[in-house]
Amino acid sequence: MKQRIRLFLITCLVLTSFACTQTETIDPLPSWNDSPAKQSITTFVESITNDGKSSYVPPAERIAVFDNDGTLWPEQPMYFQLAFALDRVKALASEHPEWKHTQPFKAALENDLSTVLQGGEHALLELVMATHAGNTTEEFAQIVKDWLTTAKHPKTGQLYTDMVYQPMLELLSYLRTNDFKTYIVSGGGIEFMRPWTEQVYGIPPENVIGSSIKTEFEIKDSEPVLLRLPEINFIDDKAGKPVGINQHIGRRPIAAFGNSDGDLQMLQWTCIKQENSFCLYVHHTDAEREWAYDRDSHIGKLDKGLDEAKSNGWMVVDMRHDWKQIYPK
Amino acid sequence: MKQRIRLFLITCLVLTSFACTQTETIDPLPSWNDSPAKQSITTFVESITNDGKSSYVPPAERIAVFDNDGTLWPEQPMYFQLAFALDRVKALASEHPEWKHTQPFKAALENDLSTVLQGGEHALLELVMATHAGNTTEEFAQIVKDWLTTAKHPKTGQLYTDMVYQPMLELLSYLRTNDFKTYIVSGGGIEFMRPWTEQVYGIPPENVIGSSIKTEFEIKDSEPVLLRLPEINFIDDKAGKPVGINQHIGRRPIAAFGNSDGDLQMLQWTCIKQENSFCLYVHHTDAEREWAYDRDSHIGKLDKGLDEAKSNGWMVVDMRHDWKQIYPK
Repeated sequence: MKQRIRLFLITCLVLTSFACTQTETIDPLPSWNDSPAKQSITTFVESITNDGKSSYVPPAERIAVFDNDGTLWPEQPMYFQLAFALDRVKALASEHPEWKHTQPFKAALENDLSTVLQGGEHALLELVMATHAGNTTEEFAQIVKDWLTTAKHPKTGQLYTDMVYQPMLELLSYLRTNDFKTYIVSGGGIEFMRPWTEQVYGIPPENVIGSSIKTEFEIKDSEPVLLRLPEINFIDDKAGKPVGINQHIGRRPIAAFGNSDGDLQMLQWTCIKQENSFCLYVHHTDAEREWAYDRDSHIGKLDKGLDEAKSNGWMVVDMRHDWKQIYPK
Repeated sequence: MKQRIRLFLITCLVLTSFACTQTETIDPLPSWNDSPAKQSITTFVESITNDGKSSYVPPAERIAVFDNDGTLWPEQPMYFQLAFALDRVKALASEHPEWKHTQPFKAALENDLSTVLQGGEHALLELVMATHAGNTTEEFAQIVKDWLTTAKHPKTGQLYTDMVYQPMLELLSYLRTNDFKTYIVSGGGIEFMRPWTEQVYGIPPENVIGSSIKTEFEIKDSEPVLLRLPEINFIDDKAGKPVGINQHIGRRPIAAFGNSDGDLQMLQWTCIKQENSFCLYVHHTDAEREWAYDRDSHIGKLDKGLDEAKSNGWMVVDMRHDWKQIYPK
């Protein structure tokens, strides 16, 4: 150890090094108030990266999984992907004159969200199939990218990708600095997220797991493409999350972050009966800077999860008190 | 540039450095004879890693996909996973007395491979469901690991994992040294491969794509598990390969390696109409050291692929002439 330090110092001298400051003095989570939540994160990371301890976990096994809606960015007043679908209905309406008289399209065209939501899962599925399928994977990625550069959130007036949670960006970065592989595991569409997660979260497309529709390989005009079909392939929610994690990663994560009952099984899979693991729920308690909702919410309901967090000793972030800042400045 | 070299030399002096030899002089592919195949690989890698050239590809996009059976290890006289399934039938026979009188199990118990194969896909599916499902993902991984430590190949008498192709191990390593992410994209079972690919190929479980059966999340005796169900989830073969690649990686690879018509769509997806890409077929031409088969083979048939390779300018490795050595010594 002594030899290592000496080598480090010598190298510093030779390199007249600007990079030889002690990183330990820099707070990796500056947007987090000093609280049990912040403390629990750094304690966990220190315990699994200290190779002198029995709690050490080798880098290859440092897998951290994050829900997206409500965990990395907001989900109110509706899932951002639903806002995308509604905008797509408007964009495609001229090709579908029948939508003026057919629900849920009529409601979508009239900005009548409550009627859309009254249609339940069936209506949402119809909207998704009509707006997300019928093109190639590359065409769809471009449509998503284009939308994100112009669409604004109805409450904040900001671009959606500017509304990611600053404390979670710091957490993602802190974990990666400690050799974690960070993954998104979302009920949202895998191909809706992949075009932008690398730039926004530092999470590359191959680390994004989500719900999907079927695709079909075809050579079209002598070009190989994947066509997006109006048929569900996989729903990455609730008990589907551990299934999706296993299918894509093939290892059990050691850290999981969510905000709703839809993430419960992911947290159970990660933390129940697995030593050296860490689970955390983001609890939306900040009606002023963000939104406040939990047990009775239609979106992002957190009910059973709150009870399970208590009985399993999972950390619950109180957004209002634990986060200094919500969005990047 | 000069400054960089000076810094490098100074650092070498300070570190009295054993690591300061010039790596350029070491052949990264020593088991490959000097041939157009070897030359084409190094030319491609040099062209996409030279950031002064228009052919440069940034590291994040350097995705290389490899078929497994017949590309990284043999597939004769039968897929190694079929040998596993047949051994599992024997191991489980005492729990299934009816198998003595029911095909394809009767044939499996009597080592009558030709009757098993005569049953076609339906028989193989029955064998897989009876031998690969009904346990948890962790139990199944352990069964695979245990089998691989004892089962021997009928012709060579070697452990199956000792029969990987040395030239391909070098190729995998060479690509990773040049910041490629290497993936397996196999028609074989994803959970049959994951327990050993990291140790044998240096390919971690999250970089393995394959066929799969469905799994179901459950809390069993207060432990969260994934149960393996006797139901097909995904067949990662032929037109399924680009679908699997897109589902798991979400980027188009820039290099693809296969050996049969089952890999054709993967090579088309990678190389047709995509600049700065590389596709290669391993052609089994070595009856003495390995096996020789192509257009008429029941296993690993390479017919249409050979024609497509010619018309698309893909490299075809002549195993007998291009490889100095087949297996690791």
